[in-house]
Amino acid sequence: MAILRNSNAIEGKVVLDVGAGTGVLSIFCAQAGARKVYAVEGSSIADQAVKIVKLNKMEDKIDIIKGTLEAIDLPEQVDVIVSEWMGYALLHESMLNSVLFARDKWLKPGGLILPCKAELYLAPINDLVSEDRLNFWSTVKNQYGVDMSCMTDFARRCIMNNDITVNPVTVEDVLSHPSKFAELDLYTVTVDQLKSVKGIFSCDCFGSSTVNALCVWFTVTFPGGEKPLILSTSPFKQETHWKQAILYLDEPVDVEQDTKVEGEIHMYPSAESSRHICIHVDYSIGQLKMQSKTFSIPDGYSETQP
Amino acid sequence: MAILRNSNAIEGKVVLDVGAGTGVLSIFCAQAGARKVYAVEGSSIADQAVKIVKLNKMEDKIDIIKGTLEAIDLPEQVDVIVSEWMGYALLHESMLNSVLFARDKWLKPGGLILPCKAELYLAPINDLVSEDRLNFWSTVKNQYGVDMSCMTDFARRCIMNNDITVNPVTVEDVLSHPSKFAELDLYTVTVDQLKSVKGIFSCDCFGSSTVNALCVWFTVTFPGGEKPLILSTSPFKQETHWKQAILYLDEPVDVEQDTKVEGEIHMYPSAESSRHICIHVDYSIGQLKMQSKTFSIPDGYSETQP
Repeated sequence: MAILRNSNAIEGKVVLDVGAGTGVLSIFCAQAGARKVYAVEGSSIADQAVKIVKLNKMEDKIDIIKGTLEAIDLPEQVDVIVSEWMGYALLHESMLNSVLFARDKWLKPGGLILPCKAELYLAPINDLVSEDRLNFWSTVKNQYGVDMSCMTDFARRCIMNNDITVNPVTVEDVLSHPSKFAELDLYTVTVDQLKSVKGIFSCDCFGSSTVNALCVWFTVTFPGGEKPLILSTSPFKQETHWKQAILYLDEPVDVEQDTKVEGEIHMYPSAESSRHICIHVDYSIGQLKMQSKTFSIPDGYSETQP
Repeated sequence: MAILRNSNAIEGKVVLDVGAGTGVLSIFCAQAGARKVYAVEGSSIADQAVKIVKLNKMEDKIDIIKGTLEAIDLPEQVDVIVSEWMGYALLHESMLNSVLFARDKWLKPGGLILPCKAELYLAPINDLVSEDRLNFWSTVKNQYGVDMSCMTDFARRCIMNNDITVNPVTVEDVLSHPSKFAELDLYTVTVDQLKSVKGIFSCDCFGSSTVNALCVWFTVTFPGGEKPLILSTSPFKQETHWKQAILYLDEPVDVEQDTKVEGEIHMYPSAESSRHICIHVDYSIGQLKMQSKTFSIPDGYSETQP
């Protein structure tokens, strides 16, 4: 665990857990020898955290503070900030703003932030699930004697829409090595910079296939020991509850080995809700002219309760 | 197919398709020899139905009429009404009211309604998925060294809530033979009667297990030939897109062979939206005293688009 790897840095120190949830990270910190942990949680799950801390006999080390980070008060500055702040596509309904607020208000100079860095990646994919759903309409005639092939276009517009789709991507569907398009250093990034996270990407396709979507994911890095620990939500790694963010293109495009998929991607808060994310992509595939598409996460894609 | 089985009754006849969707039932009726099919569809999918009818060269036989059944006009009375009106738990966002309206306004005396009958069933189940999710909290201590067992009660209240959960039920989780609690004869049932569909149930458990939910499903019957055709959404049959409706009890109850699970179930439209369904259940299990619980379907459980 990332916390235990950093136990040298945590032992005897004061820790702030931003968005503590059930308090499990706070307990890890106490187990790693923290002198004191302030566990701040705004939702009613804080009541459960109180029970869990008591059950684990950590009341003397961990203070559960019910309230939003921006509103609460702490009796002292802290040596370490820990937080599991990441949302879908890293920034959707994320708590990163609160972590940065906590850093600027409560972290001692030279203090530690866990995780300390986030990176964003993109790769073109050939999403077979959506292709199968589209191909269904061409099979109806043979199966039921009714030609419904003209539904394919309509269904394509329904599926290949402007929603950011959060789903696990099968590794076989990924068509190139990932391209890193942004990196956030949690010691220096500002709330203002989070309003526009932008970067370029360039991918060389592995071989003959069809690109029907771009796939976005992230990693976060915990410093420590000889080797930093990286939590990756890549389709090449074990699935996490963040899965991947899929951006469907309007039309599928055939690619060959070394066909370039490149462009610029821009993540920013939606005008309706500052905690919701929009993604704008300008992209070109091979010799085709540049295309643009803007995506957002539909309502109801919130973190699930236990 | 139910339509083709009734081709004797459809041949040369005039058919009304209530909520025609893509028009596939209408095309089946035309293939079965209908003289004329009026396909009424209120949503924009009607535009797709027009294309599909043209693609299948049935424009002379099938009229797609865009509008709600209650608002449109037909040039003649019809011999047959067909409709795929069923919603989750039979009545959630169902179009049965429109079918009954069509019957009273447009069906010739002695005309045919397909399907002609719906039946509702209930059985106690032991939903293992929810049990696994609850048991997780007891395993955290061994896996991660943090005792989170006190989360089980909280998680139980989150999962075992008042939502009607639409999910496929595994046949092994069904704890008794089904008990039929209601039957709707589409020739005689009235819109008024649909406001309160009520019945009693009595189930004898197969053997030792734990009841943590009641499961509700339906069948609809198409007359025809020697043997009527029954479309069943039972967990004992192949899964359909209706799956089953799961009603979680607040507390699981242990049962033995022949333990009686009995009571009364009442389905009625929600006060907020007449197209949404509520289910109230009074039940007793074995010697335990009667319990009551009222359920509704959460927002967002609408029929999916193609």
